[in-house]
Formats: sequence, C-alpha cells, structure tokens
Amino acid sequence: MPSLSLEAMRRLVVEARVARLATVDAAGRPHLVPVCFVLETGAADRVHIAVDSKPKRGTELRRTANLRATGRACLLVDCYDEDWSRLWWVRLDGTGGPLDDTDDAAEVAEALDALAAKYPQYRADRPAGPVLRIEVAAYRGWSATPLG
Amino acid sequence: MPSLSLEAMRRLVVEARVARLATVDAAGRPHLVPVCFVLETGAADRVHIAVDSKPKRGTELRRTANLRATGRACLLVDCYDEDWSRLWWVRLDGTGGPLDDTDDAAEVAEALDALAAKYPQYRADRPAGPVLRIEVAAYRGWSATPLG
Repeated sequence: MPSLSLEAMRRLVVEARVARLATVDAAGRPHLVPVCFVLETGAADRVHIAVDSKPKRGTELRRTANLRATGRACLLVDCYDEDWSRLWWVRLDGTGGPLDDTDDAAEVAEALDALAAKYPQYRADRPAGPVLRIEVAAYRGWSATPLG
Repeated sequence: MPSLSLEAMRRLVVEARVARLATVDAAGRPHLVPVCFVLETGAADRVHIAVDSKPKRGTELRRTANLRATGRACLLVDCYDEDWSRLWWVRLDGTGGPLDDTDDAAEVAEALDALAAKYPQYRADRPAGPVLRIEVAAYRGWSATPLG
C-alpha cells in the first residue's frame, strides 16, 4: 500500500476544489455535504468553510448545529477516475465549530479573504457567514500508485 | 431552492460512479471514504458496496466495524463544477451493515453481479467481500438549477 507523506497530503488537500464534510449530531447520526474550503498549514493545520448561500440554508444549519453539538468532523478529498490505478484520497479527522462573528472577527475576515483568493465565485459574492473552523488532528491518505 | 424529485435523485445516484460514505463509530467519531456502489430501487431502496482490495484493508475494516457498531450510514453523491450553477448533490440517510457470506449468500452474489455489471474493473477482479448493505431511509437533494 503506497503511503502518502504529510507534505503530499497537504498539497493534495490545498489544491482540491471540493471536499466532503461529515459531521455527527447529538444522537450519533452522520451528516454529509460537499464543501468549498481552505486549508491553512502550519503548527496547527486548520480548515475554514463558509456557509455561503441562502438556498442551502437548511443544510448549512444542520452542519453548523452538528458541530456545535458534538464538535466532530471528518473531511475527505479524493480523486475518482475510471482508471483505478489513479485513485487516491486524503482524510482529515478533527474537531470544530462555527466562529463567533464578534470574538473571532479577525479570523473570520482572514478566512473569507482566503476563500475569496481560492474561489473567484466568492470574490463575486462574498459569503455572509458563519465561518466554520476545523482543527485537523490527523491526516490519513491512500494512493493506488505513488504520487510524485 | 430548486428541489429534486425522488425519481431524479434515484437516477443521479444510479448513474454516479463514486459516492462518499460516512459512518460513525461507537464513540461518535465520523469516518469517511469514497466508495463504488450500486443502488437498487424498489419498495425498499438499497445500496451495496464491496470491500474490494487488500491494500485498503485497514480502512475497509474501520468502515465495516463502524456499521457493525452503530449501523449508521450517510451516502453522498454530488457534482462539483467551477460553474456553480451546475452544482447538485443527493444525500441518502440509512442504516446498514456487512452481509453474512453464508446466511446472505444469495444477496451477496446478486450484489457482486450488479457491481460487476456497473464496473468493468470488478468484472476483471471480482471483490472477495464482505459486501455492505445500506437500507435507504431518506433521500435529500439539492440542485443549483432545475435538472431535466
């Protein structure tokens, strides 16, 4: 089983345009949504996700409520290809919750700037928030063939 | 918010080549993996997933163990596109677990046949099992624009 270095996993996640976020409610039920995100790496890796559009409000509330209730998060970035020798995935386990617009105002602004820098769609229509923060506790990755 | 009919959601899921499966362990921690799958629709919709290759054995055991422990499953099929007017997702909430090779032998064989019919990769290399079954309790879907 080819393993991925931490450096390779971080790069794959930073470059990914979409991830899937799993959260869990107080009753232990999993919930899953696709998300746009930014990963900041450093002494403590963090993911920021904006709750971006009113049409998905019901779902966004559930994701936010789950994080508030249990704090558990799992984020997956993967590549599917009909050539299965090209498959890979990176999973981030962590904990998180919504940032407070007042207490965390600086972090919210930085996260929205980073999201806007990554996604032109967010530059055209800056999300109103809230912003979710996930602190990455562990990376796991797999690749069918070694990645350069 | 454009909604998706049950018929549209089933079609999108049946046609999808990959889904992401969230499970939860006994301690309430979410786990997430990309999966190949088949969806059978009818009086009771069911998803079957094969645990397909030794290299991913550690992960497959975790997914299987989580289902055995809590039975909770959430499956997501989605489309990401840089044109966000093309985004959509379908989420299946359900419960499941691994089939028994002896007691459920007929269902295991049918599921492997269906997986092989959908994926040529499985025809070339039939998975050894186990096969996971998820019984779909609810569909939720969202599309940025109405789908035909």
